[in-house]
Amino acid sequence: MDVNDKSLLLHKQWQGKLEITSKCQVSSKEELALAYTPGVAAPCKKIAQNPEVAYDYTIKSNTIAVITDGSAVLGLGNIGPYAALPVMEGKAVLFKDFAGVNAVPICLDTQNTEDIISTIINIAPAFGGINLEDISAPKCFYIEEQLKELLDIPVFHDDQHGTAIVVLAGLINSLKIIRKAKEDVRLVINGAGSAGIAITKLLHSYGFKDIIICDIHGILSSGYPNLNPIQKQILNITNHKNQKGDLKDALKGADIFIGVSAPNIVTREMISTMNKDAIVFALANPTPEIMPEEAKKGGARIVATGRSDFPNQVNNVLAFPGIFKGALKGHARQITESMKLASAKAIASLVSDKDLSENNILPEPFDKRLCDTVSTAVMKYIEN
Amino acid sequence: MDVNDKSLLLHKQWQGKLEITSKCQVSSKEELALAYTPGVAAPCKKIAQNPEVAYDYTIKSNTIAVITDGSAVLGLGNIGPYAALPVMEGKAVLFKDFAGVNAVPICLDTQNTEDIISTIINIAPAFGGINLEDISAPKCFYIEEQLKELLDIPVFHDDQHGTAIVVLAGLINSLKIIRKAKEDVRLVINGAGSAGIAITKLLHSYGFKDIIICDIHGILSSGYPNLNPIQKQILNITNHKNQKGDLKDALKGADIFIGVSAPNIVTREMISTMNKDAIVFALANPTPEIMPEEAKKGGARIVATGRSDFPNQVNNVLAFPGIFKGALKGHARQITESMKLASAKAIASLVSDKDLSENNILPEPFDKRLCDTVSTAVMKYIEN
Repeated sequence: MDVNDKSLLLHKQWQGKLEITSKCQVSSKEELALAYTPGVAAPCKKIAQNPEVAYDYTIKSNTIAVITDGSAVLGLGNIGPYAALPVMEGKAVLFKDFAGVNAVPICLDTQNTEDIISTIINIAPAFGGINLEDISAPKCFYIEEQLKELLDIPVFHDDQHGTAIVVLAGLINSLKIIRKAKEDVRLVINGAGSAGIAITKLLHSYGFKDIIICDIHGILSSGYPNLNPIQKQILNITNHKNQKGDLKDALKGADIFIGVSAPNIVTREMISTMNKDAIVFALANPTPEIMPEEAKKGGARIVATGRSDFPNQVNNVLAFPGIFKGALKGHARQITESMKLASAKAIASLVSDKDLSENNILPEPFDKRLCDTVSTAVMKYIEN
Repeated sequence: MDVNDKSLLLHKQWQGKLEITSKCQVSSKEELALAYTPGVAAPCKKIAQNPEVAYDYTIKSNTIAVITDGSAVLGLGNIGPYAALPVMEGKAVLFKDFAGVNAVPICLDTQNTEDIISTIINIAPAFGGINLEDISAPKCFYIEEQLKELLDIPVFHDDQHGTAIVVLAGLINSLKIIRKAKEDVRLVINGAGSAGIAITKLLHSYGFKDIIICDIHGILSSGYPNLNPIQKQILNITNHKNQKGDLKDALKGADIFIGVSAPNIVTREMISTMNKDAIVFALANPTPEIMPEEAKKGGARIVATGRSDFPNQVNNVLAFPGIFKGALKGHARQITESMKLASAKAIASLVSDKDLSENNILPEPFDKRLCDTVSTAVMKYIEN
């Protein structure tokens, strides 16, 4: 039986991968009177006086919502809220298992931007954070931006920032191996959707200077047709020489390629036009932009993918559990740029100089130190 | 330490009475590939083809939302969504402990009727049912009515129907004791909010003929000022002789009094004007409309309250766990009038003729037979 058949069978057995369980006993009248009426009125009254103490008395302290509209689910596209639910449940399983964070899957029966925003605002009180998931670009940018503005709990679109953080962690360690400085390298990012834009922004924040971003039609440059507002904005921090052309042109003389795009669109020949010691992160899933073996034959020194069956897996699970654990613990209001940078450095730090190699630039997802290392890093930058 | 202090302390220790736990292991790459990517795509694709099979592969099969806007919480009034959270968590604890149903507390940051409706519709896909809770009248009627119309999962406002079902169960058994027929008795219901209206409707459905409903100003009758649309509607099934006057007038010659109103508003003298073998359900919480001892002195034969420290507690927990368990098991689209009547009869049936007495008209909340007896009764009436 292959992984799909086996997974389908297991999902049928589970009938839901999550359970909501009680921390308190209610097996007598006395216990009922404490967990429910009349005793429950006591914490209610405390919170009515000061909503902030909801963190002291309720699930808000350690519960987030994992929210999607089903518009961009895995590589499956716009499959809608019902079909997205197994993924959201899986994400909630990871939040619990990797960080002890309670996560509630919420699948929205609307794909309208304003409705998504107002619905999330309306259900926010019981949650200590919002993890947005699998919402299509470009609306995902506006939704996150608005929610960050309007809510006083952290809002984090994992497809953007989780990916960006782990990519940065991988690059920090890759640069150590090839002994190049972030200020000196030339990066090409292929894919101008949620992940591509977020990666570009975070790498720029970190200090990479020379970044080119491409979409399916080629290099994003001024005068490029049909740019959305976010893509226009990104031109301020990319392509300073306003280079034009396609991905092939962009790759010539580049040091780093990061693909968050489509399978098999990069050839061995294209890699061979990159600089010596090229770094190739081919993250399209399940089939990368170029297979690792091919990239190596083209001259790449370090290759990463999104897959667990090759070395150097770029996996968001390295980041999001610890980020929310830290944010919840510190009652953070936002996940800031500083927290993201600190998370990337924390993840990178877990590969010791001794262990660091072309095939080992990132820690394993099951590294027991991971979650607390990230959450501690995040907590240092909480500004409340 | 009294119950309030003790409860406050416990709530601080719990920091949330619920936990979201995982049914599946993700402690290896293989397990991760089955519960999450890439295997999770298999159930996603099945559901994308037919959203109905979400019941087979996801938490929708056994998960409901417990939703409030915090506008009418316990006896505390409009304390808002944050302060309502401990109550919603408590309710979710009861759903789990009494029926094995997973319940997610959702506290809405809006008290606008249309926003409440659209928000609930937008978050419905992941849930197999919606339990509305502590939403003020009269908007609660319209909200429930609209949601029943627009959603294909059961929507149940427990403050209305849970209370009505348990009241009816108590009356079924009370009438056995006093040997009067439902067609012959005269009922007075005091309180024209969510519970009062729902009790009136269900008792009428069951076959009570002569019902008078009062609010704080007196008997609801045609020409009564400031009736809301629901109260106007209720005149079609109550007060056929269009009697006018106050609660005192209404009680003269009545067989049954049901109070869902305010503390200490009924006197011993008022009870003494009722018919022989009067039944008094004084359900205001925590202080009833009249204390049981006083009601007995006034001539009441059977007295019930909402409190666990007196005999005959009318407690919604007798109804809602089994109702949702049955509805979820049968993938019910609605909780119908037939299901409510069947639930009331099922609850009443658990007090055997041998055990039935003035001080024992209802089963104990911890009666192990309760949940399955109710859920089996509900499932008989699922019409899908």
